[in-house]
Amino acid sequence: MTDVSIIGIGQTEVGEHWGTSIRHLAWYAIEAAMDNAATTEVDALYVGNMLGGELSRQDHLGALVADFAGLRGIDAVTVEAAEASGAAALRQAILAVKSGLAKTALAVGVEKITDQTGNSAMTALMTGMDADYEAIHGLTPAGSAALMMRRYMHDNNLQVEDFAGFSVNAHTNGANNPMAMFRNRLKAERFAGGPKVATPVTLFDMAPLGDGAAAVLVTSSERAMDMVPKPVRITGSAIRTDRLALHDRKDVVWLDAAERSAKAAMEQAGISPDDVDVFELHDGYTILAALSLEACGFAEPGQGWQLARDGEIGRDGRIPISTFGGLKARGNPVGATGVYQIVEVARQLRGEAGDNQVKGAKIGMAQNLGGNGATAVTHVLKAGE
Amino acid sequence: MTDVSIIGIGQTEVGEHWGTSIRHLAWYAIEAAMDNAATTEVDALYVGNMLGGELSRQDHLGALVADFAGLRGIDAVTVEAAEASGAAALRQAILAVKSGLAKTALAVGVEKITDQTGNSAMTALMTGMDADYEAIHGLTPAGSAALMMRRYMHDNNLQVEDFAGFSVNAHTNGANNPMAMFRNRLKAERFAGGPKVATPVTLFDMAPLGDGAAAVLVTSSERAMDMVPKPVRITGSAIRTDRLALHDRKDVVWLDAAERSAKAAMEQAGISPDDVDVFELHDGYTILAALSLEACGFAEPGQGWQLARDGEIGRDGRIPISTFGGLKARGNPVGATGVYQIVEVARQLRGEAGDNQVKGAKIGMAQNLGGNGATAVTHVLKAGE
Repeated sequence: MTDVSIIGIGQTEVGEHWGTSIRHLAWYAIEAAMDNAATTEVDALYVGNMLGGELSRQDHLGALVADFAGLRGIDAVTVEAAEASGAAALRQAILAVKSGLAKTALAVGVEKITDQTGNSAMTALMTGMDADYEAIHGLTPAGSAALMMRRYMHDNNLQVEDFAGFSVNAHTNGANNPMAMFRNRLKAERFAGGPKVATPVTLFDMAPLGDGAAAVLVTSSERAMDMVPKPVRITGSAIRTDRLALHDRKDVVWLDAAERSAKAAMEQAGISPDDVDVFELHDGYTILAALSLEACGFAEPGQGWQLARDGEIGRDGRIPISTFGGLKARGNPVGATGVYQIVEVARQLRGEAGDNQVKGAKIGMAQNLGGNGATAVTHVLKAGE
Repeated sequence: MTDVSIIGIGQTEVGEHWGTSIRHLAWYAIEAAMDNAATTEVDALYVGNMLGGELSRQDHLGALVADFAGLRGIDAVTVEAAEASGAAALRQAILAVKSGLAKTALAVGVEKITDQTGNSAMTALMTGMDADYEAIHGLTPAGSAALMMRRYMHDNNLQVEDFAGFSVNAHTNGANNPMAMFRNRLKAERFAGGPKVATPVTLFDMAPLGDGAAAVLVTSSERAMDMVPKPVRITGSAIRTDRLALHDRKDVVWLDAAERSAKAAMEQAGISPDDVDVFELHDGYTILAALSLEACGFAEPGQGWQLARDGEIGRDGRIPISTFGGLKARGNPVGATGVYQIVEVARQLRGEAGDNQVKGAKIGMAQNLGGNGATAVTHVLKAGE
């Protein structure tokens, strides 16, 4: 089976890009990735997007983005898996190269959320939940996360304060990232007093929605060696799913799909959690960060929050997460988020993370969640040699 | 590269399924395909869908459909390319098998259009056009087809009557298909007097929108041989794109993406148009049928309509099309249409087409268009030996 490597990465700043349309955002990230790889040869394009139709009244982004980014005519489609659309798009780019049907494939995640005249972002995001059994009763993604968090707090006898470390770490790292939506630091003592969104979830638990695009260009590792110095290899890639509705799941505080996708990706890569030097996880809510750490084997069930309390998720800790701010501070451009995570892990493994560098990082992992864990996409990356 | 074959096909009747949700439609088609292949082992699911979010307020169909169809937990995502979403999903299933990452992959196209409380179907379909330069000015898909048809009539000195053969043929074939939405015959002399939709397009030019789902199960040809008698091989598969907005295209009456995707798929299969025994094309409008025949090399530019006039598109003609009614009579369940086409070609090549059988059909082709040709997906299939 063809081994696949990353030859180019690109991203826009996450934020409120009121003057920039969805096609422009995608183009900027693609241009940056092609510049980074010093190539314009692309055979196939996979666009990760969830809300284009809802918020920009624009579906059919494959053809549109291919044309607008100067790749007119190529094989191009959109891949959607709610908030996990970005990493799911990368997965298809990898399959295209592995199958031999594309030499070079591009995954671009793009989302335009602010300054829209269509549905509200929250109404649009509810399409990622079970429409007939959750959304119709008014349950929002934040409400769903609140149910998970409350149960987790009950089971483990925790207070809201116990989750502070996740957001403090994210903001500390985001402060050094010029692409981040929020670059302010957050004090732990302010955490629990955040404006309430859906009790116990506050604004400080929850990632901000922003506009943005990120792109990753992949090719066979053999070709990559001739194109760029030390290409980052993709050694594991897996998507797994769970029941969409929270009430249907066996255990609302266990991310079953996250566990199985991480196991599958790590097995492909021949690694265990101990080998992972940096982990970009899906901290759309602090509870998801805790549960992702547990599902991926970095903590026992019910103990993921302790890694944040003990400072083990910092750049010098046992398992550094959200090293460029994570969803919480870099921002959450929904369908683009999974590609941002890959760009960030690649920067760490290339040693190009600047002030946010995890020293000696050789193996990185990224996990993108959709529908609060109904879809989980895990990738394992390895530094070039 | 792994050779891929079809081991199971399934479909629901196309129509107004008011009592059936999108998840049920998908499930029925998947169950039929798994029954047909006599297997329930599926590694990856690709859902072709365009309007779930718009009309059912339900995105994230990968996880939802996987769970509901009894495939809980597997790798599952949605693939979208406007009206070409169905065939684009099949393409990804093929890549999954070719890459070696899935042994068996399932493509299901599903769309629930009638009895919705959300946006109107027409508003929703406009998301497949250029939102900023076409839809915002009120151009609909039917309006866009009308512009193409008017130009084609002008260039070739034609009347509306000259397109009658396409719809007459489709209805003749649909009359024998219990899965078809319309089973009435259409008289040629009634054609030009159809209720006007967007002059010159009338109701008799235009395919009806319906609810439905179709599924295709694929695996490596090697495994397929042990699982079913005479599995249908997929010998060509290609997606190509064009500029999304009609006014941006080099020639509004030439389907550039259709031409290039057909050429690529036929080259993979090592065939020429003369070798094709049956062709399921995207007759969403009669003008698209004429242009698809031309783009794929069955007629010279400007002469595709003559094949309909001369009866060459009938079951005994030179190039039989719409053999189960096509979009026009079988109905157009948008994101599912491309998978219906594959199911129908497979039935022809298996010799299971009953009254609609094209005698001795060995090689079939299917072409699914999105955005009136901005995306074209072409597959070539070969009868098992």
